[in-house]
Amino acid sequence: MIETPYLLFLGDAPDMLAAKVAIGIRDWRPDNAVGQIRLPGCGADLGLTDMTLAEAKAAGAKTVVIGVANRGGVISAAWKEVLIEALSMGFDLASGLHNLLRDEGDLVAAAQTHGATLHDVRVPTVWYPIANGKKRSGKRCLAVGTDCSVGKMYTALSMDAEMRERGMKSSFRATGQTGILITGSGVPLDAVIADFMAGSVEYLTPDNDDDHWDHIEGQGSLFHVSYSGVTMALIHGGQPDALILAHEPTRTHMRGLPDYGLPSLEQLRDTALPLARVANPACQVAGVSVNTQHLGEDEARSYLAEVEKRMGLPATDPYRFGAGGLVDALAAL
Amino acid sequence: MIETPYLLFLGDAPDMLAAKVAIGIRDWRPDNAVGQIRLPGCGADLGLTDMTLAEAKAAGAKTVVIGVANRGGVISAAWKEVLIEALSMGFDLASGLHNLLRDEGDLVAAAQTHGATLHDVRVPTVWYPIANGKKRSGKRCLAVGTDCSVGKMYTALSMDAEMRERGMKSSFRATGQTGILITGSGVPLDAVIADFMAGSVEYLTPDNDDDHWDHIEGQGSLFHVSYSGVTMALIHGGQPDALILAHEPTRTHMRGLPDYGLPSLEQLRDTALPLARVANPACQVAGVSVNTQHLGEDEARSYLAEVEKRMGLPATDPYRFGAGGLVDALAAL
Repeated sequence: MIETPYLLFLGDAPDMLAAKVAIGIRDWRPDNAVGQIRLPGCGADLGLTDMTLAEAKAAGAKTVVIGVANRGGVISAAWKEVLIEALSMGFDLASGLHNLLRDEGDLVAAAQTHGATLHDVRVPTVWYPIANGKKRSGKRCLAVGTDCSVGKMYTALSMDAEMRERGMKSSFRATGQTGILITGSGVPLDAVIADFMAGSVEYLTPDNDDDHWDHIEGQGSLFHVSYSGVTMALIHGGQPDALILAHEPTRTHMRGLPDYGLPSLEQLRDTALPLARVANPACQVAGVSVNTQHLGEDEARSYLAEVEKRMGLPATDPYRFGAGGLVDALAAL
Repeated sequence: MIETPYLLFLGDAPDMLAAKVAIGIRDWRPDNAVGQIRLPGCGADLGLTDMTLAEAKAAGAKTVVIGVANRGGVISAAWKEVLIEALSMGFDLASGLHNLLRDEGDLVAAAQTHGATLHDVRVPTVWYPIANGKKRSGKRCLAVGTDCSVGKMYTALSMDAEMRERGMKSSFRATGQTGILITGSGVPLDAVIADFMAGSVEYLTPDNDDDHWDHIEGQGSLFHVSYSGVTMALIHGGQPDALILAHEPTRTHMRGLPDYGLPSLEQLRDTALPLARVANPACQVAGVSVNTQHLGEDEARSYLAEVEKRMGLPATDPYRFGAGGLVDALAAL
């Protein structure tokens, strides 16, 4: 559990593309961010208040979150200076970088001296159990994709936000480093040891109120040969009551696999649903989430109408047009 | 790669049940075992020549393999004495115990002093790549089970043995600690980090002669919610040309999961084959392997006849009745 609220460290990020994590926090958990801190030459701007460490401290920030990718795979001296000062002021640090904070001797020393915590969210810190498959109370929803990176995290975040706006009981359950930094907790599933994957998802989504929904962040795809095992563990560990089919219609081949075409939404449905019913016989496919970022508005709307008709399911781009239809479908289950 | 041949260390094993690894080596790679070494009170006997360390050295043994489970989760002082002496004589040590050799300071010190290697086969020693899904040359066969522990390893070992007896090109590819100790190499798949599972299977089964068969050791089951992700990674990383359906007909529920019934062979076929065809569109289900250890001979034969008729596939217990029918089916593909 990472202590909130955060000060978002943008470092010397060349542009907004490098600030994906910080953007996610601003968009989905704005209350978690008191402000941003930038170094000279920073080309990213979240539109939040620029703060010094002292100002952020006064505003109540507990953790400095590295909200950007670093350059060249090293944590630079310019970053170090600010990060060590933050530790000396009692901030914790949180990062999803491949280079771990814990591998930097000066950061470790400063954290120890000042009693601060270094959170490397790519690395599991829990000994997860082996999955036991026992039925848990509460409801769970999982987005499964025709491919990787088709918008499963944004689908889950949108549905969670819509439910909370309606006063429904809902939690987003993060399974990747961006999601973990956005919400402050979760399971870095792609770094979990094989035998404990499904157990880590059970751990992430425990018993809950009967009318509470967990929106579990999806990973990979059953049709992506590099990561399908991770997806499988999410389907069985998550024992979802509802699946959302996620798709990006302009993709011509599976991400990173030029020889692999994408499955149809029908194939995805017919593959994922029987597998999900092994763990939860009541599971239903509740809707379709389409990432329409590469389509114009008219094109997007007519594509969604066609999918709704063809699949007999509500279809939307929840980030663009809202998640209302998907939440209605879950509420009606 | 563990250097062969082995001296099989049986320690003070109370009975043959504790000597599963040693039995596997004796049965499947008898040329790998020059003899056995036992401590006072040992109740296991493989029927191999009892040897001192010096005799085994003279007979050419390179590695002392711990072929038994230890008692109470500790490596006892009585074991240590022999193991340290073995290291001092230049033997390597290999073990699949949960307690790692490398965690025992006196073994590490002796190995360093004498230039010997400690092999803990439960722990990956390779940085496996992410799977790339590229089509590889050569043929691959994978057994998939209705449940865990239904005889997938013995199926693969039997088919490999039958092929080599016929002069066909064949390799057994181990994915668990027993299989790795039997053959001296492999991937401890259940201990691999999630993102690299399928890549480790690609690594294990590289390009080969067009008429060469890899028999990949199966793990878990698509229907076992604790381990299905590992099975999925085997199906996609292994890109099998042939699947063998493996089943144990007397089991009343999934292993360790009292609330989960077993799928039928038809369900297993209809689930596994479409998933396998994602990675290898030419994949076929070639036969059924039934573990009949809890059936009398007549009962076993009539069960197999019924399965053959129902599934339209050769069905056998390869350990009991031979793997000929399954190998015929692969040769005919």
